[in-house]
Amino acid sequence: MLHLVHSIIQSPVGYKWFIWNRVIEENTVRNYVVKGNICYSKSSNELCIVENGYVVCEENKCAGVFHELPEAYEDFPLYDYSDHMIIPGLVDLHVHAPQYPFRGMAMDLELIDWLNTYTFVEEAKYANLDYAEKAYDIFVDDLKHSATTRAVVFGTIHNDATLLLMEKLEKAGIASYVGKVNMDRNSPEYLCEESAEQSAKATEQWLIASERFENVKPILTPRFTPSCTDELLERLSQLQKKYKVPVQSHLSENLGEIEWVKELCPGTKNYGDSYDRYDLFGNDCPTIMAHCVYSDEAEVEMMRKQNVFVAHCPESNANLSSGVAPVKNYLKKNMKVGLGSDIAAGSTLSIFKAMAMAVQCSKLRWRLYDQYVEPLTVEEVFYMATKGGGEFFGKVGSFEEGYEFDAVVLEDVSLRHPQELTVKERLERMIYLADDKNILAKFVNGNKILEK
Amino acid sequence: MLHLVHSIIQSPVGYKWFIWNRVIEENTVRNYVVKGNICYSKSSNELCIVENGYVVCEENKCAGVFHELPEAYEDFPLYDYSDHMIIPGLVDLHVHAPQYPFRGMAMDLELIDWLNTYTFVEEAKYANLDYAEKAYDIFVDDLKHSATTRAVVFGTIHNDATLLLMEKLEKAGIASYVGKVNMDRNSPEYLCEESAEQSAKATEQWLIASERFENVKPILTPRFTPSCTDELLERLSQLQKKYKVPVQSHLSENLGEIEWVKELCPGTKNYGDSYDRYDLFGNDCPTIMAHCVYSDEAEVEMMRKQNVFVAHCPESNANLSSGVAPVKNYLKKNMKVGLGSDIAAGSTLSIFKAMAMAVQCSKLRWRLYDQYVEPLTVEEVFYMATKGGGEFFGKVGSFEEGYEFDAVVLEDVSLRHPQELTVKERLERMIYLADDKNILAKFVNGNKILEK
Repeated sequence: MLHLVHSIIQSPVGYKWFIWNRVIEENTVRNYVVKGNICYSKSSNELCIVENGYVVCEENKCAGVFHELPEAYEDFPLYDYSDHMIIPGLVDLHVHAPQYPFRGMAMDLELIDWLNTYTFVEEAKYANLDYAEKAYDIFVDDLKHSATTRAVVFGTIHNDATLLLMEKLEKAGIASYVGKVNMDRNSPEYLCEESAEQSAKATEQWLIASERFENVKPILTPRFTPSCTDELLERLSQLQKKYKVPVQSHLSENLGEIEWVKELCPGTKNYGDSYDRYDLFGNDCPTIMAHCVYSDEAEVEMMRKQNVFVAHCPESNANLSSGVAPVKNYLKKNMKVGLGSDIAAGSTLSIFKAMAMAVQCSKLRWRLYDQYVEPLTVEEVFYMATKGGGEFFGKVGSFEEGYEFDAVVLEDVSLRHPQELTVKERLERMIYLADDKNILAKFVNGNKILEK
Repeated sequence: MLHLVHSIIQSPVGYKWFIWNRVIEENTVRNYVVKGNICYSKSSNELCIVENGYVVCEENKCAGVFHELPEAYEDFPLYDYSDHMIIPGLVDLHVHAPQYPFRGMAMDLELIDWLNTYTFVEEAKYANLDYAEKAYDIFVDDLKHSATTRAVVFGTIHNDATLLLMEKLEKAGIASYVGKVNMDRNSPEYLCEESAEQSAKATEQWLIASERFENVKPILTPRFTPSCTDELLERLSQLQKKYKVPVQSHLSENLGEIEWVKELCPGTKNYGDSYDRYDLFGNDCPTIMAHCVYSDEAEVEMMRKQNVFVAHCPESNANLSSGVAPVKNYLKKNMKVGLGSDIAAGSTLSIFKAMAMAVQCSKLRWRLYDQYVEPLTVEEVFYMATKGGGEFFGKVGSFEEGYEFDAVVLEDVSLRHPQELTVKERLERMIYLADDKNILAKFVNGNKILEK
């Protein structure tokens, strides 16, 4: 028999939801069925839509998507979201938590000046735990109410503030990687670590302290080559091998930055090589590189071969006048590509907005710059926002069998329309127009962490 | 003595506002004072901010902005919005009301194919008044809840539906120009007027029927040169001279479109000339031309000399892969420039979003295409969204003395932050992040048409 767990709209205008007949205790039961219009990607050009379908969560994992519910699952409790859309949780592969306070501001400079004028000044404040407490409360609460279920996050150089951030993300139920940032050169005195040795030592202490978290994992985070000495990268490489942690950094974002790296690292083949020579660029070291706007052929080939993930951050790349990454090419080469909000060079945590901007910027790149790289499609950006970025977490970001169960329930009643719409059209509309008010419920790794 | 009309937040989280001690009867009293953080443009590079200031509405017009309220206005009723921001109403210089149902969808084609595949099919539905009723109810209601106080609107070829739209806008209190569209060639049979003569005759009937509206005025609307025969433009020119109505159309949006116009209009100097030869391009005929992405030097010079308004629609130009208009140049030449949402090639009615996209697209244009045209600033896009576009309506879009009183009250409590922010920073943040929930109240020509 089916145990009904109806979620009903009390008022179609007020978006107020009440759970009725609740038989599922949150964060414990891992077997259930979710009913609605199921949308998910199998590949970058294969978007699957099952109208009025069922997606089954069995022991935290997807057991499949069905038009008719198989007998085997009839005893599972049911979340019935009727005509609403159910999509995999969105993945933010690149977000700077401490920069959230100045989102949507300070958009008048390019990368290096922007860092020195606004960003470093803000990040320095996180030496003060009271400030970090206030700021990270806001960040984590907003992230919780967004469609993002997984995030890969930059903290600051401060161990305590970074651990506080991890604690808050753990409590909110958002599966994430978080990095204590390393910077020991070319940084203002108030935000520069004492030495490579001290930076590495603090990093090891932080790695050990991070072991207490269950769903939030540490990721090594050399800020970018200009702010890390060779000795620091060498020491981080040793830590990477010892603790088997992944790595995140920035790559080929801005033309001035790339020239600077050339000067700083004589003998390297390209910017990517400045990480690769310390084994911090894929292969046995799972790696995310944000941006990759100007990666040359050799750098791209190295990323492809070594399974380096590209975090494409289109809004950031527009706001800082960086350019537009040729993402279509990366997808064609079957490279690992996801999307990043890149707060606060990006103004919003919304990965829907990142999807829309990815399409829009790819069109402008095609029109203004290079007609050999075609614009991105809705299917491609939806894939990047879910399965593409999700792969960094393992089998995450799809409803295919065996995937960890991350899901978001979307209501679009507020976007009124006089005509009939297909589910595909409704999904496309969400990419351009969805906002936190459209997020009705969110499941991460089988746990429901949000229900409005 | 000051009559207090306090607007207070009942719950800082719930955004619920209640009017307390209301002594102003809406839509009748035209003398009052609004208190808050007043932000307005004097020119494209002069943004004025008066913190905790007063802006006075006297007989529907701005009497000025003051740090301290002058004695002369002490008897005026006061709307006290305490720490909230008060800005001039936003102006949408280019929006297609009938396309609102498919906003955020069908973004996979360029202009001409997009028109034939999606747009004309949708617009044809407005022959049915029941459909128009449903669709325009949604459009007008959403526009009313946005920050837009003035709009210049395309309808369809249908007189009845266009009059219905005008009636709804009038009732909602949004000051606007609305156009019955003219199309008598190169259009699908189901959306093509019978002949130039029939189109002109219907237009005259519609102009006469429009006389009953007070705040909604007719504007002649030849769709664009490809869909209007020479005879039709000639007849519209006669109507323009007879009824002294303004004109709106499209100009130099897409490269394929421009080539087509060249073929269709042998002997014209440029696309603009195809309107100008019928006196439908500025001078005594107030004119808005949407897009102007690829206007050549002669076309730009003609627009400048003849005071043609440019409706810059950055999101639309990205979505349809059109390109990016060199708006900075237009501002430098002191041309008339405003912003347009261009629904449904643009996905949203939000002119805040148009401001943000205008900055972002100008940065990508600069980076990818032409480093001689600098990116736009926050000051410039705010100017375009208010005073720049407002000028088409007369003295509209600023709080300088003598301007018609259009104002929007913005709350940003929902965008939490741990640090102090200046009003300028808060305004910039609104440009990137504001949404309808941030609009607390709206005044058009002295009348309060919205209060949450």
